[in-house]
Amino acid sequence: MSESLNIAVIPGDGIGPEVIAEAVKVLKKATEQSDAPLVLTDYKLGAEHWLETGETLPEETLEALKTHDAILFGAVGAAPGDTRIPSGLIEREMLLKLRFSLDHFVNLRPAKLYPGVPSPLAAPGDVDFIVVREGTEGPYVGNGGALRVGTPHEIATEVSVNTAYGVERVVRDAFRRANERDRKHVTLVHKHNVLVYAGHLWRRTVEAVAAEFPNVTHDYLHVDAATIFMTTNPSRFDVIVTDNLFGDILTDQAGAITGGIGLAASGNINMDRTAPSMFEPVHGSAPDIAGQQKADPTAAILSVALLLDHVGLPKAARRVEEAVESDIASRDEMTDPRTTAEIGDAIVAALA
Amino acid sequence: MSESLNIAVIPGDGIGPEVIAEAVKVLKKATEQSDAPLVLTDYKLGAEHWLETGETLPEETLEALKTHDAILFGAVGAAPGDTRIPSGLIEREMLLKLRFSLDHFVNLRPAKLYPGVPSPLAAPGDVDFIVVREGTEGPYVGNGGALRVGTPHEIATEVSVNTAYGVERVVRDAFRRANERDRKHVTLVHKHNVLVYAGHLWRRTVEAVAAEFPNVTHDYLHVDAATIFMTTNPSRFDVIVTDNLFGDILTDQAGAITGGIGLAASGNINMDRTAPSMFEPVHGSAPDIAGQQKADPTAAILSVALLLDHVGLPKAARRVEEAVESDIASRDEMTDPRTTAEIGDAIVAALA
Ligand SMILES: CC(C)[C@H](C(=O)O)[C@@H](O)C(=O)O
Ligand SMILES: CC(C)[C@H](C(=O)O)[C@@H](O)C(=O)O
Repeated sequence: MSESLNIAVIPGDGIGPEVIAEAVKVLKKATEQSDAPLVLTDYKLGAEHWLETGETLPEETLEALKTHDAILFGAVGAAPGDTRIPSGLIEREMLLKLRFSLDHFVNLRPAKLYPGVPSPLAAPGDVDFIVVREGTEGPYVGNGGALRVGTPHEIATEVSVNTAYGVERVVRDAFRRANERDRKHVTLVHKHNVLVYAGHLWRRTVEAVAAEFPNVTHDYLHVDAATIFMTTNPSRFDVIVTDNLFGDILTDQAGAITGGIGLAASGNINMDRTAPSMFEPVHGSAPDIAGQQKADPTAAILSVALLLDHVGLPKAARRVEEAVESDIASRDEMTDPRTTAEIGDAIVAALA
Repeated sequence: MSESLNIAVIPGDGIGPEVIAEAVKVLKKATEQSDAPLVLTDYKLGAEHWLETGETLPEETLEALKTHDAILFGAVGAAPGDTRIPSGLIEREMLLKLRFSLDHFVNLRPAKLYPGVPSPLAAPGDVDFIVVREGTEGPYVGNGGALRVGTPHEIATEVSVNTAYGVERVVRDAFRRANERDRKHVTLVHKHNVLVYAGHLWRRTVEAVAAEFPNVTHDYLHVDAATIFMTTNPSRFDVIVTDNLFGDILTDQAGAITGGIGLAASGNINMDRTAPSMFEPVHGSAPDIAGQQKADPTAAILSVALLLDHVGLPKAARRVEEAVESDIASRDEMTDPRTTAEIGDAIVAALA
């Protein structure tokens, strides 16, 4: 870490700027007493920026982002009906490009049902697990193609690429995290009865890494079965490790059962620290409620806690989490009339 | 259809034979008054059969199966701990081989929350949708490979193959089914912002086919968002059309929210009728409770209703569904002490 704490801020589109404004308030408050002064630099990226400039992620911006200690990210993406923007362009050319260029191989997504938060499950139990989603391989590599497009003979392929190098480092990260937790249990989620080659690489890797962690137990679930347990018995999970696409699906489901993705934080983490990690709410840009102060900034604020952990300020991270937890406990979700800013302010006040 | 109704029966492994015994009772009762006499032929296939003979699906058996009007299938698969059987072998070389060889391009999976069935969701609403899962393409084609296996340089790939021919026929089937339903709404589920080539083929196909069905509305959800709605608002769905893998995941989740896969039926349907279709419960062989008369045969029995529909006996199909519905309404799920056979007998009695 440099002598100051240099954070790049990418508010993005839709509700991104609103929730990031609150996350920044919390970040400032939480680092107020820290030795390293906080330096924030804003970067304008996203669908709006593309409409104005035609740029997704220019090389200079990518290089500039690399000079920071971490990146705080809001959300990107145009309104679904906006035909000016090729669908998925911003997501791929900016968001995924950042994850891949900065080697964010651990996509960390905690799922915790905070006391006081209503779950859509009738009997959720004590839900407190983390998903360690692989972030740089799998079906996300952009290795697809198409022939005879637009004809009755069209064929389109998508290739999931999995390497021993890529799988091992994320599996090891999952076991390390499990080793620090109470239950010390890793569940591999895949579909190895169908995706044989990738599935067996994942399974063999889990067996090999498990041997290094005698205190950590592990089991295996097919992804279809995992969605069932996520519904009927989510408290069975401690640490889930899975590939990029299964992780995408399971973490949205995990967000839903723990009270909504308005509360779900994530970190795109480069554990080798060869480039800055990026912290972002799991939710998207939600253009339908943008600019109305209706968005819940909690997921963005919990992402700040993950950021603080990563940059070596675990105490500040815990304080943010506790402030969020106490704010949540005082909410009546059904009737919480607070604006985005009021929720942010309340969490800042709880921090003080 | 031949002059008799020729049904092949594959009980399979684990709880397969128990639930199929009840399904057969119901099939007999429901076709009692039909003009075409019912002829049942048993085929022994599955993990146990493989252990005895080393055969997964011999060519002669496949040819013999093709002579039937439909196939009633239980479940296959060894106990997870049974190391004598290469993992996934039976699933791929028998179950998936049947789906592919018999061109079961429509994998139909209704999801209905029957009155009286407790859902794990706190407020499920009125859940009654069908998933039309593609059955012969996508990541299920077995088009994977691996290099330098077991070394730190291993690379494993899985290719999802999607064709205009394959996508169009299943999308058209989904719109046809939607057109027959009250709400007449199709939701395409995919992940086209990441899986660009396959995703765009699916989207373009939906737009093209939608133009043929002016009474049917349609929308699109990314698979991650679909798992959220499945949790928070499943009554929004009417007909979901999706690829083989997303369909696998979503239908297990759909089974869970509608009271468990013990109730979830499915049809592997060749709508061109160039080969027999196959009907099976969504659940697996559940070796842990096999042979104990603990399995719920309802999913297998509802699969009989789908079979009857397909072989041109829709009235018999409705009668089976109504018998199941009335049996379910009389259950207390928490304390239902009935054996597999008792549930089957009760449904037969309700049919009478
Ligand atoms: C926007 C999209 C590309 C992204 C993903 O699929 O990873 C999002 O769903 C997420 O989970 O962060
Ligand atoms: C057993 C397995 C190969 C199968 C599948 O993945 O299709 C099962 O999960 C199903 O949904 O019927």
